[in-house]
Amino acid sequence: MKKQLLAIYWLLAIPFCLSAQNPNSDSAVIRRMFDEALLRGKAHPMLGELCKTAPGRVSGSANAQKAVEWGYKTMSDLGFDTVFLQPCMVPHWVRGDAEEAKIIGKRVKEKVNICALGGSIGTGKKGIKAQVIEVKSIEEVEKLGRDKVEGKIVFYSRPMDARKIYTFAAYGSCVDQRVWGAKEAAKHGAVGVIVRSMNLSQDKHPHTGTLVYDDSVQKIPAAAISTEDADKLSLLLQSEPELQFYFRQTCETLPDVLSYNVVGEIRGTEFPQEYVITGGHLDAWDNGEGAHDDGAGCVHSIEAVRIFKALGIRPKRTIRAVLFMNEENGLKGALQYARQADSLQEKHIAAIESDRGGFTPRGFHLEGDSGKIELVRQWVKLFEPYGLHDFANGGGGADISPLKKSQKGILLAGFVPDSQRYFDFHHANTDRFENVNKRELELGAASIAAFMYLLTQHGY
Amino acid sequence: MKKQLLAIYWLLAIPFCLSAQNPNSDSAVIRRMFDEALLRGKAHPMLGELCKTAPGRVSGSANAQKAVEWGYKTMSDLGFDTVFLQPCMVPHWVRGDAEEAKIIGKRVKEKVNICALGGSIGTGKKGIKAQVIEVKSIEEVEKLGRDKVEGKIVFYSRPMDARKIYTFAAYGSCVDQRVWGAKEAAKHGAVGVIVRSMNLSQDKHPHTGTLVYDDSVQKIPAAAISTEDADKLSLLLQSEPELQFYFRQTCETLPDVLSYNVVGEIRGTEFPQEYVITGGHLDAWDNGEGAHDDGAGCVHSIEAVRIFKALGIRPKRTIRAVLFMNEENGLKGALQYARQADSLQEKHIAAIESDRGGFTPRGFHLEGDSGKIELVRQWVKLFEPYGLHDFANGGGGADISPLKKSQKGILLAGFVPDSQRYFDFHHANTDRFENVNKRELELGAASIAAFMYLLTQHGY
Repeated sequence: MKKQLLAIYWLLAIPFCLSAQNPNSDSAVIRRMFDEALLRGKAHPMLGELCKTAPGRVSGSANAQKAVEWGYKTMSDLGFDTVFLQPCMVPHWVRGDAEEAKIIGKRVKEKVNICALGGSIGTGKKGIKAQVIEVKSIEEVEKLGRDKVEGKIVFYSRPMDARKIYTFAAYGSCVDQRVWGAKEAAKHGAVGVIVRSMNLSQDKHPHTGTLVYDDSVQKIPAAAISTEDADKLSLLLQSEPELQFYFRQTCETLPDVLSYNVVGEIRGTEFPQEYVITGGHLDAWDNGEGAHDDGAGCVHSIEAVRIFKALGIRPKRTIRAVLFMNEENGLKGALQYARQADSLQEKHIAAIESDRGGFTPRGFHLEGDSGKIELVRQWVKLFEPYGLHDFANGGGGADISPLKKSQKGILLAGFVPDSQRYFDFHHANTDRFENVNKRELELGAASIAAFMYLLTQHGY
Repeated sequence: MKKQLLAIYWLLAIPFCLSAQNPNSDSAVIRRMFDEALLRGKAHPMLGELCKTAPGRVSGSANAQKAVEWGYKTMSDLGFDTVFLQPCMVPHWVRGDAEEAKIIGKRVKEKVNICALGGSIGTGKKGIKAQVIEVKSIEEVEKLGRDKVEGKIVFYSRPMDARKIYTFAAYGSCVDQRVWGAKEAAKHGAVGVIVRSMNLSQDKHPHTGTLVYDDSVQKIPAAAISTEDADKLSLLLQSEPELQFYFRQTCETLPDVLSYNVVGEIRGTEFPQEYVITGGHLDAWDNGEGAHDDGAGCVHSIEAVRIFKALGIRPKRTIRAVLFMNEENGLKGALQYARQADSLQEKHIAAIESDRGGFTPRGFHLEGDSGKIELVRQWVKLFEPYGLHDFANGGGGADISPLKKSQKGILLAGFVPDSQRYFDFHHANTDRFENVNKRELELGAASIAAFMYLLTQHGY
């Protein structure tokens, strides 16, 4: 009886031992990837280099070009099989002088913190002074109509909804004010637009971000105001509805500039013509260092590929780190990448994007064929020891989205780090290297490497 | 057929509708608790008050007394049913002058950042200068023996293991050097001890923490050195093993002082004699503001009870926020609380502790009867929308641990926030209010309120 029990014990134990001891099991490889990232990781120093040598690398700027050179040199020095540039023409918007703004009332004259929205026109050198009308939505502007709006500065003040646990959901339901607010206000004769910053904190930092004009509508200047100053303005308007606002910004859009995506790859051993890519965007708004947005995504991607190399893992399929240019205001790099993949008939089976910051990893949001996604979800248990649980359906990301069109059946995966702090930094001068935690960044890179590994080895 | 299908549809839909629409369903109440914390939360301003009016509130200090008064006033002002103090005698250790330390070699004489370990004796006013011997463990000291150790300063340099995803596991397997290092080195004739700070970052900040002497062994002074300086010292020792180290600290232990736990409660409506408590510790090391450790746990607890009151939820069982005194170096408050609960025959069915910082909530570690814990795990799905997935077996926490002895069948639950950044701040001068994120703190308070709610309403 004792012997029988022992035999049963060993029979039960064998599969466990095999998986625990097999250095090539998925779980063992993933463990080594995390160890590499946490013990010998390069993500953090790489991010420091990028942020300090090329801060504020908005498309078309000298620092964007420095960032391209940095990406090319970094991946070349790491010894990736191939590193190349993909040329594309990008918009070139410049901020000009530091912005000025004041609330001007009967009893108050107070400076406030604003910054021009990306792509906005300037106010002219003298600035604009006009009465302010506060609204909570674009719909409210439409309801008010020309009678109430003409000649005024429209102040969009709807805050992000703090109740939403996933802060990108709060952003998504608020950012229409910033993107289309100027265009809609202009239709009703507004002369300028001020938007409450997309930020869940009360602070002094204005948060920029792109706006979209309509060529058939008069362009009017638009700026973001810090959340503290937005609340102050709202309060003052309650006691003095005729309050005036002054702002001056000299931003402008110059002719398009030649720029580049930077791509580094390791060739696949079995299916080199099939691609699994991971990317972030290299451009960043000019007012910060682009640390979380999206230096983190760039170094996540480079580091994920570096981890394969450091561990001597030859992927079955070709893997790429793609540093996209011009995500913030045009997506020209992303469109160029998809076009080239199409024309070269590069079969992309999966694309991962990291553009939600360098925080503790929580999962990947998945977009693609629902049956195939269920197969991917079988890998979830491999990620649980590392704290990743969120593999919901959801958008992959802006830069990989153009691949959907021509790459039939592709899986798009958006890396999801913890979102609580992201909007403290997003598009603001607080988005600095010092506000990225080394371990959190490293765990993100390892998570992406692990997901790439599963995709390259098992296909999709 | 169509009608039948419709009938089936409605039958299937009813439970969902009821739960979605019933404002008293568990999920609806929990949603309201999170909304209250995120929209009208008091955790963040309360933490600011505590940190700024009573920073460095080490047991027995004037600021610890200020913290007691703050806790009493805060919970009284919030209108809790009862607020009371529980007296207990606590140790009174004082740091004295700012510490000084130098590495002294043939070619180097370099100042380094140290701080005395809590409870350490001083060096005398002249300080101690001796040759350094570096070890990676207490076992190594034992192996080296008196021959190699006598008359020297033992430098414990084993770092926390960065590979451990849950950083408390890395701490747990490293902190023996700090707690027992001095006692063990003294057995072999060492004259002092320097310990590499318990910190996963490379930085300039020494991290204090308690040590434990043995009355039968000579007491020797011990200090923590910043991780950067620890690495520097290791490097210098490689080229010059005879290197000397000088340090001076004038800390000492004064006679015990009367102090207090602060308890605030809301009486239960159905089982007032049964208790569900949540606590953090009010004392904090003197070199920081005690923001994450453990101001966060204190305000988590107060806020959790406040949320019941704000939403008009009368708990079936009595709920308490307990601000424990002297967790860091004695646990005298925790022992007093358990003793009093025992002598008053207060039946505690569950105790929650928050002492792992004010970061994004990830779950609760559970300690208690395994069958009952499985029942608690059925609630996990209620927490998933808020990002909590980790309900593993594990320690509840130091302050609630004495309840295990007399409170038969109690559930101990340790609140588990994300652990990646905790040791950047733990016991260091970086543990400041400014390093606590408002949303992360609020989500923690709401998570604890929700867990308390389930325990008070459904029992355990």
